[in-house]
Amino acid sequence: MVLRMSHYYRLVVSCPDRVGIVSRVSGFIAEQGGSITEANQHSDLMTGQFFMRYEILADSIAMDAETLKESFSPIAAEFDMEWGLSDTSHRPRVVLMVSQDSHCLVDLLYRWTAAELDCELACVISNHDDLRSLVEWHGIDYHHVPVDRHDKTTAFAEVERLIEEVEADTIVLARYMQILPAALCERYQGRIINIHHSFLPSFAGARPYHQAYERGVKLIGATCHYVTAELDAGPIIEQDVHRVTHCHTTSDLVRFGRDIEKLVLARGLRWHLQDRVLIHGNKTIVFA
Amino acid sequence: MVLRMSHYYRLVVSCPDRVGIVSRVSGFIAEQGGSITEANQHSDLMTGQFFMRYEILADSIAMDAETLKESFSPIAAEFDMEWGLSDTSHRPRVVLMVSQDSHCLVDLLYRWTAAELDCELACVISNHDDLRSLVEWHGIDYHHVPVDRHDKTTAFAEVERLIEEVEADTIVLARYMQILPAALCERYQGRIINIHHSFLPSFAGARPYHQAYERGVKLIGATCHYVTAELDAGPIIEQDVHRVTHCHTTSDLVRFGRDIEKLVLARGLRWHLQDRVLIHGNKTIVFA
Amino acid sequence: MVLRMSHYYRLVVSCPDRVGIVSRVSGFIAEQGGSITEANQHSDLMTGQFFMRYEILADSIAMDAETLKESFSPIAAEFDMEWGLSDTSHRPRVVLMVSQDSHCLVDLLYRWTAAELDCELACVISNHDDLRSLVEWHGIDYHHVPVDRHDKTTAFAEVERLIEEVEADTIVLARYMQILPAALCERYQGRIINIHHSFLPSFAGARPYHQAYERGVKLIGATCHYVTAELDAGPIIEQDVHRVTHCHTTSDLVRFGRDIEKLVLARGLRWHLQDRVLIHGNKTIVFA
Amino acid sequence: MVLRMSHYYRLVVSCPDRVGIVSRVSGFIAEQGGSITEANQHSDLMTGQFFMRYEILADSIAMDAETLKESFSPIAAEFDMEWGLSDTSHRPRVVLMVSQDSHCLVDLLYRWTAAELDCELACVISNHDDLRSLVEWHGIDYHHVPVDRHDKTTAFAEVERLIEEVEADTIVLARYMQILPAALCERYQGRIINIHHSFLPSFAGARPYHQAYERGVKLIGATCHYVTAELDAGPIIEQDVHRVTHCHTTSDLVRFGRDIEKLVLARGLRWHLQDRVLIHGNKTIVFA
Repeated sequence: MVLRMSHYYRLVVSCPDRVGIVSRVSGFIAEQGGSITEANQHSDLMTGQFFMRYEILADSIAMDAETLKESFSPIAAEFDMEWGLSDTSHRPRVVLMVSQDSHCLVDLLYRWTAAELDCELACVISNHDDLRSLVEWHGIDYHHVPVDRHDKTTAFAEVERLIEEVEADTIVLARYMQILPAALCERYQGRIINIHHSFLPSFAGARPYHQAYERGVKLIGATCHYVTAELDAGPIIEQDVHRVTHCHTTSDLVRFGRDIEKLVLARGLRWHLQDRVLIHGNKTIVFA
Repeated sequence: MVLRMSHYYRLVVSCPDRVGIVSRVSGFIAEQGGSITEANQHSDLMTGQFFMRYEILADSIAMDAETLKESFSPIAAEFDMEWGLSDTSHRPRVVLMVSQDSHCLVDLLYRWTAAELDCELACVISNHDDLRSLVEWHGIDYHHVPVDRHDKTTAFAEVERLIEEVEADTIVLARYMQILPAALCERYQGRIINIHHSFLPSFAGARPYHQAYERGVKLIGATCHYVTAELDAGPIIEQDVHRVTHCHTTSDLVRFGRDIEKLVLARGLRWHLQDRVLIHGNKTIVFA
Repeated sequence: MVLRMSHYYRLVVSCPDRVGIVSRVSGFIAEQGGSITEANQHSDLMTGQFFMRYEILADSIAMDAETLKESFSPIAAEFDMEWGLSDTSHRPRVVLMVSQDSHCLVDLLYRWTAAELDCELACVISNHDDLRSLVEWHGIDYHHVPVDRHDKTTAFAEVERLIEEVEADTIVLARYMQILPAALCERYQGRIINIHHSFLPSFAGARPYHQAYERGVKLIGATCHYVTAELDAGPIIEQDVHRVTHCHTTSDLVRFGRDIEKLVLARGLRWHLQDRVLIHGNKTIVFA
Repeated sequence: MVLRMSHYYRLVVSCPDRVGIVSRVSGFIAEQGGSITEANQHSDLMTGQFFMRYEILADSIAMDAETLKESFSPIAAEFDMEWGLSDTSHRPRVVLMVSQDSHCLVDLLYRWTAAELDCELACVISNHDDLRSLVEWHGIDYHHVPVDRHDKTTAFAEVERLIEEVEADTIVLARYMQILPAALCERYQGRIINIHHSFLPSFAGARPYHQAYERGVKLIGATCHYVTAELDAGPIIEQDVHRVTHCHTTSDLVRFGRDIEKLVLARGLRWHLQDRVLIHGNKTIVFA
């Protein structure tokens, strides 16, 4: 456990919009003496849904997280809220899944050592053994779970067992080139993050840079999204692009793409770990 | 007066940060039945200052703007607030000042006709007569106030008289190539917006694209800022850049620059007109 | 005819790649004493095709364009070239087609008056009469050709007649909301430029900003492309994007989109008019 | 030595512009049967200087690099060229210099293992011992050369000795926080590359992100440039920026900055290693 000068409570709320929500919630926080260090809110005028996120200095409130939750429950019930309250002294546990391309993995490992990602790296799971030495050098467990193309069931049972064993909060597909079983996607809904190497919805599926090259687009992109049972169709968290010209071959596109993928996945994951991403239907609210 | 389906009250507040501000303000709005359609807040942890902006559906409150202001005054006093409350049914009055380059003027006129800028264009003032026909075609008054380089006093007295006469809320220097007198800058502090054709603080002063060309930078920029008595040193509202290479001459830089200037000025002005820009020392909070 | 200090010959070549092309072409130019002010070349390693563009100071060669073409013909034949040689003293004739949205039209008219687009504006054709006054103020002919949804044949016969009458070199669909007949697309292949308001291939067809909003993408875009008989599927000339968040409604997307559309169409058209765009299958080489 | 399917000769030329250069050079290459896979040229109309870079398939020419150089010499003399011809089968030797921040180092090491940087990493020199384990894990020598602030001479003599010993072609200051002696800068002119953590010429010198925060800029940047005796004033190779808002603290700026620094340095170094960067006075031609 890292020693921390101060920790925070993060209150995240989604409910039908109506007069008085902010007043009620901020009033409750003020009654506890709570010092709000960051506040975001959003009213979706199309669907009438309201969203908010408060970051509250934990030391300013004379309650632990559990007691605070109990005290808040009646308000949540009154406004029909979906809500959560997290304590930053509990660092979320993350499982990274990779195949052979290491760029996202190397990038996330650096950011983790540089304290850009506030989480525990519970372990790395890969269908190849190539990246073991790199991962173990960082002091992180590496599990090689080969996927037999004729029987994927065994492999994904083992993957699921490992995820459960380490009590993962979040699973990151950091260029993991296998499709997860629908049941696993549904079980960990809103907790599995993928990086897709195209600007979705363009070029879903296999070999997106080759598809982009064939179409002659002038910008290529990458998309960080939550995984759902439907391939490359889940709620988008973040996207970015890179300019290309007729001079660039598919291998240039792949190379540029690595840089976008790294940045987009790192931003998306950081926001997710800080409870900044709220899912609303197949879209996201990102309080970045 | 344009017929509007609905109008809004905009409450903008800056005060020393302490527990309970949001609760008090949102509680007050809720008591009036006020429906908040957009809310932004920011705590500057370095200076301990708090900022907020609420957009409230006017029809949801059974008070006119003046009565609402009176009712809110005690809260403002209690928290030592600098604050303002505007009613969007009053459209701010804008004076545009230009010289000979028309790109920002053409752009702002288009945006105004397309309802992107929620304001009255009170008049255009220019030290040249070149753009009269364009402006008058849009049904806007054009005042030619030549500036004698040996006696600028007369000209700027006339400029000031015109600004007063039309009761301008905001003055926009849309590539006006004269330096305003310090006294005028101070009188209209926080209400004069300039577009400078460089990425400040680089290349302040004259011929910034030539300076940029000489230095061999790989991106050129433009800066929208509030005008203060010190040239090109006021609070920055918005900036953007455009990539250049060794292939580009100074005239290419000028051409690219026009596009950045147009976009940056238009964004900055739009935010200003919507009370989204709060000045804090020599910096801005922009609730974009 | 505008008086010009100097004019240029532009030689554009596409041929199967082999040793000695550049040597042969540059040798020929040098023999005539030709001063090359800009040169671009590209070898497509996938298809073995070679592309080049030379800009040559006309005064440095003691031949007019026709004579130069004749002299160059044997080399072109030897290397099996598709090629063209244009003289910038002939300004290409452009027809603009619009419907009711004026942003691209206003933008192109400004750029034309600012000499950013080196062409004659032959006329504007619209299926509405709304923008007549704006166009005529610029001294350009405006033709209102209404399109009857039950019989489009008559309208497009008239459109084609007008295009022929003014001897158009290039047709620009500057937010023209009708689909051109396939025969017209084919007849003017490589000479009709469209701006599509999405980042193709995403969101082809109708209401792309609404499609983008529904999918929850984090960047929206626009695409300038050559028109082919297949809707929104022609060779892409230029694209760009703008960041959006959950805060933005479809009307914000439409507003941001206007700015991207203007920039992307203006860049694409400028390059086309300067013979910088070479079509290769369904892709483009852009010597920008 | 890595096994390579094919290697290339790279011819880079700078000379006074005049008619016939391209013809003469391309004619010479064609006479040898040389297959040009990439060609770039640029005429600087302000200074009358001409620049070119050819990439030639080595196997297409029946000469080794030395013989080719000898054969080309008379042409170079005739046109008063500064020029160089490199053979990509010789990989340039690079020394990386770092202090304690590891982000650029981690990034360059990844790119080197991924074959994005075509060079030998001769060694890493640091004024701290912190990053030894990381570097040695990659199989690269690490030299800790502490710099005594009262006597820097000894340290830089040792640095220079190491650079000579490994026969470095290029030295990269990958966030090396000491100022190199002027004599060393001059000796390795055009061969030392630095990453400065601001958008130069803004915020030269110390703590640029703090300077940027104080000024309230809306974009922060990084600059890759050749090192000269004058601090942060050498020819710029590449720059890029990242958007910031009032929400961001200096530590956010530092964090965003790391990503820009990594990308900008990596691009600049890659281009330098591929002989794509030509220095012209205090500016660069970059045939990217």
